[in-house]
Amino acid sequence: MEQAVWRVDVNQQTVTTEPVPAGWQRLGGRGLIPRILLDEMPATCDPLGPLSKLLFTPGLLVGHMLSSCDRLSVGGKSPLTGGIKEANAGGTTALKMVQLGIKAMIVQGAPSGDDWWVLHLSQHGGRFDPAGDLVGLGVYEAAPRLLARYGDKVAIALIGPAGEMQLSAAGIQNLDKDKEPSRIAARGGLGAVMGSKRLKAIVVDPAGTSAPELFDKSLYLDAKKRYTKALLAHPQTTTYAEYGTAAIAMMCDGFGALPTRNFSAGHFEAVEQISGETMRDTILARGGEGDPTHACMPGCVIRCSNCYAGSDGKKISSPLEYETIGLMGSNLGIDNLDDVARINREINDLGMDTIEIGAALGVAAEAELMQFGDGAGALRLVAEIRQGTPLGRILGHGAGMVGKVFGVRRVPVVKNQAISAYDPRAIKGTGVTYATSPQGADHTAGLTIRAKVDHLDPAGQAALSKTAQLNMAGYDTLGACIFGGFGFATAPGAIRDLLRGQYGWDAGENALQDLGRETLALEREFNRAAGFTAADDRLPEWMTQEPLPPTQAVFDVPAEDLDGVFA
Amino acid sequence: MEQAVWRVDVNQQTVTTEPVPAGWQRLGGRGLIPRILLDEMPATCDPLGPLSKLLFTPGLLVGHMLSSCDRLSVGGKSPLTGGIKEANAGGTTALKMVQLGIKAMIVQGAPSGDDWWVLHLSQHGGRFDPAGDLVGLGVYEAAPRLLARYGDKVAIALIGPAGEMQLSAAGIQNLDKDKEPSRIAARGGLGAVMGSKRLKAIVVDPAGTSAPELFDKSLYLDAKKRYTKALLAHPQTTTYAEYGTAAIAMMCDGFGALPTRNFSAGHFEAVEQISGETMRDTILARGGEGDPTHACMPGCVIRCSNCYAGSDGKKISSPLEYETIGLMGSNLGIDNLDDVARINREINDLGMDTIEIGAALGVAAEAELMQFGDGAGALRLVAEIRQGTPLGRILGHGAGMVGKVFGVRRVPVVKNQAISAYDPRAIKGTGVTYATSPQGADHTAGLTIRAKVDHLDPAGQAALSKTAQLNMAGYDTLGACIFGGFGFATAPGAIRDLLRGQYGWDAGENALQDLGRETLALEREFNRAAGFTAADDRLPEWMTQEPLPPTQAVFDVPAEDLDGVFA
Repeated sequence: MEQAVWRVDVNQQTVTTEPVPAGWQRLGGRGLIPRILLDEMPATCDPLGPLSKLLFTPGLLVGHMLSSCDRLSVGGKSPLTGGIKEANAGGTTALKMVQLGIKAMIVQGAPSGDDWWVLHLSQHGGRFDPAGDLVGLGVYEAAPRLLARYGDKVAIALIGPAGEMQLSAAGIQNLDKDKEPSRIAARGGLGAVMGSKRLKAIVVDPAGTSAPELFDKSLYLDAKKRYTKALLAHPQTTTYAEYGTAAIAMMCDGFGALPTRNFSAGHFEAVEQISGETMRDTILARGGEGDPTHACMPGCVIRCSNCYAGSDGKKISSPLEYETIGLMGSNLGIDNLDDVARINREINDLGMDTIEIGAALGVAAEAELMQFGDGAGALRLVAEIRQGTPLGRILGHGAGMVGKVFGVRRVPVVKNQAISAYDPRAIKGTGVTYATSPQGADHTAGLTIRAKVDHLDPAGQAALSKTAQLNMAGYDTLGACIFGGFGFATAPGAIRDLLRGQYGWDAGENALQDLGRETLALEREFNRAAGFTAADDRLPEWMTQEPLPPTQAVFDVPAEDLDGVFA
Repeated sequence: MEQAVWRVDVNQQTVTTEPVPAGWQRLGGRGLIPRILLDEMPATCDPLGPLSKLLFTPGLLVGHMLSSCDRLSVGGKSPLTGGIKEANAGGTTALKMVQLGIKAMIVQGAPSGDDWWVLHLSQHGGRFDPAGDLVGLGVYEAAPRLLARYGDKVAIALIGPAGEMQLSAAGIQNLDKDKEPSRIAARGGLGAVMGSKRLKAIVVDPAGTSAPELFDKSLYLDAKKRYTKALLAHPQTTTYAEYGTAAIAMMCDGFGALPTRNFSAGHFEAVEQISGETMRDTILARGGEGDPTHACMPGCVIRCSNCYAGSDGKKISSPLEYETIGLMGSNLGIDNLDDVARINREINDLGMDTIEIGAALGVAAEAELMQFGDGAGALRLVAEIRQGTPLGRILGHGAGMVGKVFGVRRVPVVKNQAISAYDPRAIKGTGVTYATSPQGADHTAGLTIRAKVDHLDPAGQAALSKTAQLNMAGYDTLGACIFGGFGFATAPGAIRDLLRGQYGWDAGENALQDLGRETLALEREFNRAAGFTAADDRLPEWMTQEPLPPTQAVFDVPAEDLDGVFA
C-alpha cells in the first residue's frame, strides 16, 4: 500500500489519512518524531494535555523482515523529562503498521469523556472500540483477551495499569513474534501519554495487505545478503544468542561500573550469581518453559531475547535483560535471579520501564522504604504501584520523584530520567551520552563500553560519545536494533543500498551518520524550544563529588567538553 | 557596629566576619541576594546540596524602626522552583541582625552529621548549640523554649517540622514584636534549605549593641517625618489597620478573581462569610485574645496584622491574612473562618507557606483526596504532612507535586510555585507578574489589582506589571513592606534622602526604580545561569484554554508581551 500519514483524533474519534509531506519522506523512526513535533506541536505544551501528540513511526528499513530492523519508534513530549522522547521496541507492531501503509501515526486531541478505547487499524481504516472490560488489567491478561477478540494475526501495542494512571515511568508494550506482550517502548513515560488519550490498546490488523513493494529488488536483496552475512559472522552475534544482553554484566562489573546499592558502588560482591553465564546455566538446567535464546521479531538472526523459568520450569519473565539485572539486581543489592525475574514480571505486567523503576527502588531503599537485598520488600513496593497508593504513585513517577519527595540526594537521573546500568563515573564516555543526549540518561543513545579506551580518563570521551550518539540516532531512525550495528559496521554501503533498493533515493556515502546528525539536530531544536539549555546537559552534582568504589572515580569530564559535543 | 558579612560554615561550625565587598555595599535585602549568589555559588547547584548557600540580608533601610521598613530578606536557590528565591518577613530578626552589624549572613557547606543545631549570634560572634531537644517540634512549642533558654530580648528565625523534612513548601518563621513565631519568610522552600544545613533555629542576641549611627541625622529625620506623615495620611493605612489584608477579599471576588475550588471559578458564593469585614466583626464580637489590629514589627504605624480567636475567646491563629483566606477558604470551598484559622494555625506551626499548601490542598481536592468544603478533611491531610507519610510529603512539596503525582491537569503554578489569591485570568497584569517574575508566581512581586484599568483587557498589562515589578523589587531591596509604598508614593524624594541620611551616598532621583531594575536584572541573570528560558515565563497552559466563571476570561496576554517585559 502507498505509505501515508494516519491521523487519529481521540476527541472526534476519527482516523484519517494524508499524503506524506515532502520534508518527512526521507525520515522514519526516531528521526521523524522531532520533525513532526516541530511542524505540528508547541514544544512548551503540557505532555498530558490536549495539545500533546503521540507518534508511532516505523523505522525507514521496517517492512521486509530484515534481521533486527523492524523496530517501532514511539514518540512525543516526555512527561518524565519535559523534552523530546523516542522509545523504540522490537516485536511485530512496526512491521504490520508498514503493511497497512502507515509511515507515521499521529494521535492527537483530548478525549471527551472518561471511557477507555481500543483503536483498531486495518485496511479499512481505523475505528474506536470500547475497552471498558480491559481497564485495570495488566498486559499479561489484557493481551490474550485482545487476541481472542481480534484474532491472532494482529499486532498489538498496549498499556498496563501504569499508563492508565499516567505514571511517568509507563511505557507501551508490544507483542513479540510469539504474541507475548514483552517488547516495551519503555522509557520516558509515553505510556502515560497514551493513557492521557484514553487508549488502552492499538490493534493492527494487516489482513489483506502485504509488504510494500521494493523500488529495486535485486539491489535490495544483494545488500540484504551482505548485511546478514556480516551479522552472522560477527562474534558478538553468538554471544548475544547464548547469553542475551546479560552477557555484559561481568564485563561491566570488571570495569567497576555495575550499579550497586543505589549507585553507591560499581562492584557487586555477588555479581556472579546474577551474571549472564549463571542465567544461561540456570535456564538450561531447569528446562521447562525456559529458553536462553529467543527472537523478539520475525527474521532476527541474533535472537538475544530469552525466557527465564522458575525451579518448577514455569516461565517467570521474558525477557530478562541486562539493564533489569543491573537496576533490579545489584542496584537493589539483590543477589538472586529468581527475585529479579519476579520483580521484572510485575513491572512488565504493569507496563513500565524496568530501568526507571529499578532506579526508583534503589532511591527508595536509600530512603529506608525497603532494605537493600530484600526481594520481598521490593515486591511489596511494586504492589503499591499496582494499587495506586500515594507511595506507589511516587515510585511510578520514577527515581527523580522518589528522591524529591523523600529528600534523597543520591539520585541517578539526567533530565529526570534514570541512568541505566553503566555507572558514568567509571564509563565516562557513556556519562557524556547520559549528560548530553536530548533523550535524558539513556545507554541506547550511545554506549561506549566496547571502545578500546581508558574509560576512567576524561580526555577524549566527548568525541567518543558523539560518534556513538550519531550512530545510534541513525540506527534508531532506520528502525535497526543496536545489535544490527554489528552487521552494518562490517558491510560497507549496505545501508545506502538497502535504502536505495527500498525507496529509490540515495542517502549518500555517510547515510548512517547523516541521518543521525539530522535526528539529533531536530531533537535539540525541539528541546531548546521546550526550554532546555546547557544547564540540563549535566550529570547530577553528587556524581562529580562522590567517589565510586572500587575505582574511586568521580565524573570529571569538563563542562566545556560536554557543551562541545553538539556545538 | 561596623557592617560586615558574617559567614557561617555548618561543616566546620565556624562563624567568621569579612568586610563588605564594594559591589555589595549599595544593595541590601532582595537585591543583595542574587548579587552574592552570582559571585559565590554555581547557579546549577543542588539547592539542598553542599554547594548551596542560604542568605539572610536585612533591607537597606533596616535598623531604625522606620515604619514598615525593618524587613528581613532570606534567599538562596529555591528547591521549589530551581531558580532564584527571596522571601521576606517582618518581625524583629532583621532589626537585631543590623544591630549586630550584619549586612549579610551567608550560611554554607554541608553538615558533617545528622545532629541539629541552634546558631547563636551575638556581639561576641557566632556559636553552634545542640538542638536535639527541639527536633520535631512545631514553632509554637520551639519558640518559647528558645526564649526561655536565651532570654526574651533575642530575635529568632526558626524552622518547623516541614523544614526539618526538607519539604519544598517549608519557610522560615520569625518572632514578631510580641515574641510570637508568626512572621514567615514563606515562599519557595527556604526552610528546606535551612533544614539541609541542620539549623533548627538562629538566635540573634543584640545585647550590648544599638542601632547603627546615621551619616546625616537631620536629613534622615526630616525624610522620616515626611514619609511617616504621608503614610498616616493615606486612606489605605486606615483600611489595613481595621481589616488587615483581608480587606481585599470582597474586591477580588467582585473582579471575579477570587480562587474558588481549585481555581475553577473566580466568584465564591459564600465570600461574605470569609471577608475582612466578617473577620473584623467576629474578632470584635468574640473579644478575649482576638485583636483586629496588630503590628508585626516595632514602630509600624499601619498594623495590618491581627489575632483571630475562637468562640471561647482563645487565639486560634495570628495573623489570618487574605492570601490564606483565599487559598484555604474559597479555593477549598470552605466558607467559615474558624476552619480556615485552624488549618492556618497548623501550617504556621509546621513552618510552611499557606499559599503553597492551600493551593496543594485545592489540587488534592480535585484528585478526590478530600472534599471541597470539608475543613475536617483538610485538617486530616495536614496531619499527614506532620506525620511525614508519603501523602503528607507529596502535599508538603506543594501544588505542582500533587498535580504531578496524581495526574491532575488544573494545577495553578508558575515555575512550580503556586499562584496566589488573584486569578490571573481576571487580573491580567498580575498574571504577567506571575509569568515573568524570576521568583515564580508571587503577587508580592507586582500586584496590579489597584490600578484603574480594565483587568480583563490583555492590552497594556505587560507595561503595568513591569512598573509594579520594578517598584516591588525596589521596596524588597529597601526592606520596606508593600504597604510602606502608600507613604513613599506620596512623599517624593523620601527614599533618596533616607538612604543619604543613613549611608551618605546618593541613590539618585529614581532610587526605587533603579534599585528594582538592578535587582531584577541580577535575578534574571541567575535564572539564566540556572537554565531558565522564555519557556518558563508562562502561565500554565490550561489557564489559556479554560474560561473562568463568571467572567469566562482566559489568560490571553500574548507571548510577545510577556517576553517584552524585561527585553
